[in-house]
Amino acid sequence: MKVLLVFAHPESRSLNGALRDVAIQELEAQGHAVCVSDLYASRWKSEVDRADFPLLAPDARLKPAAASGAAFAANALTEDVKAEQEKLLWADALILQFPLWWFTMPAILKGWVDRVYAYGFAYGVGEHSEKRWGDRYGEGAMAGKRAMVLVTTGGWEEHYSARGINGPIDDLLFPINHGILFYPGFDVLPPFVVYRADHLNDAAFGLVAERLRDRMRKLATATPIPYRRQNGGDYLIPSMQLRPELGDPGATSFALHRNGAATGDPASRPKGR
Amino acid sequence: MKVLLVFAHPESRSLNGALRDVAIQELEAQGHAVCVSDLYASRWKSEVDRADFPLLAPDARLKPAAASGAAFAANALTEDVKAEQEKLLWADALILQFPLWWFTMPAILKGWVDRVYAYGFAYGVGEHSEKRWGDRYGEGAMAGKRAMVLVTTGGWEEHYSARGINGPIDDLLFPINHGILFYPGFDVLPPFVVYRADHLNDAAFGLVAERLRDRMRKLATATPIPYRRQNGGDYLIPSMQLRPELGDPGATSFALHRNGAATGDPASRPKGR
Repeated sequence: MKVLLVFAHPESRSLNGALRDVAIQELEAQGHAVCVSDLYASRWKSEVDRADFPLLAPDARLKPAAASGAAFAANALTEDVKAEQEKLLWADALILQFPLWWFTMPAILKGWVDRVYAYGFAYGVGEHSEKRWGDRYGEGAMAGKRAMVLVTTGGWEEHYSARGINGPIDDLLFPINHGILFYPGFDVLPPFVVYRADHLNDAAFGLVAERLRDRMRKLATATPIPYRRQNGGDYLIPSMQLRPELGDPGATSFALHRNGAATGDPASRPKGR
Repeated sequence: MKVLLVFAHPESRSLNGALRDVAIQELEAQGHAVCVSDLYASRWKSEVDRADFPLLAPDARLKPAAASGAAFAANALTEDVKAEQEKLLWADALILQFPLWWFTMPAILKGWVDRVYAYGFAYGVGEHSEKRWGDRYGEGAMAGKRAMVLVTTGGWEEHYSARGINGPIDDLLFPINHGILFYPGFDVLPPFVVYRADHLNDAAFGLVAERLRDRMRKLATATPIPYRRQNGGDYLIPSMQLRPELGDPGATSFALHRNGAATGDPASRPKGR
């Protein structure tokens, strides 16, 4: 496989840097080709602004989605953005690696998403009708590719557990896994999370590295999170609400959008199927 | 009251710009003092990097939290960051205004959080013991102040409803409301959300503006979201898990961290109280 790893830590001599090297080494040992986008090293520009749309007249009002769509259609996005889009099209798998800062990705990685995910490329594509609501959530330019996040956090695992004060890690990552990765079509693998990242001694690092190598060996074969496909019949169109007969009556929030029947997860098993 | 409005849209002639002006006008009409941090206009730097920590030796490994704490303690953060911290300390209320991009804030606003929320200022403060786990989640430097988000999204309200495919808006905003605002001590007001932002005609804008003016008139008096205080007895220490007897047995995920007893919300009413 061809793997794109987007790396968003400001220090290469960090735990994140060490884990990146472990991942690359194992992926290459398995025969995969790896391309790294090191956002800090490349001085990635984080802000969507007028400079992103060279065709926009100087006095024209900037409407980000419209400007993005026009620039994408005219092949007039900036070179840094086009290069990342090419890498995404090249890759069979995407890994987003970052430290969890304030319960989501660092600004520089959000800026990669905001700028690379152009209108017409990652959203705003496909037919809208009574049967389909665009190519998104399981369909789109990234369909057939796999993606996962590799994240470190200073906090304790218990604090991110089902009843932990930070909220469950899978729910904190839902806007990324479902909203950024599944949206343009990726099959999303379970996240790889390292807790208490500032307190790993050599022995603990060795265990984390082995766990990461194992995940890298299974990158091509691991079972994705069974998110429901938007146009697969589970949602009403155009309200895009899960059909009333689906989902456990007690299930709320993000868990509804996983198809429990696919995994036997009782928390979100649909009824009447 | 003194109100800080942090504005994160690249175009002043936008719906966001118009709503910002409506908010400011109403707040000033009510006698409040308003300070605006226009992140794009001030060319805010989004990335946490070495340049943020002038005291760090050129060859020293950058550990972001440690460097942030050392710089804050030495009053050696950069001037742009110090100015924003001063504004936060000045303000009685904070409004974060942004378009929802990929289900969270734009990179430039995340960069404001990442950089302004220094260690020792917004986190890493307070006693850790058997009774307390730092000053966070309801306590901290922002205690006694109010905060809310003002957000626009291109999507439909139904798509962000309880069973909508995007996930419920309150849950998508939880990492911001709970993780970024409640964490350093703000009382968090319900969000102000505008849907289908690209399709507002004049009449619809008038209704939105009136709704916003009403919210601004109630900024000082509206009831905050009843998040549970970390050190108020609801959580086990140090695992920071909600005590087993609290929260509705069927409630999961983020809803557990609201105290339903405070509002009569049956979905999260604690048992045995």
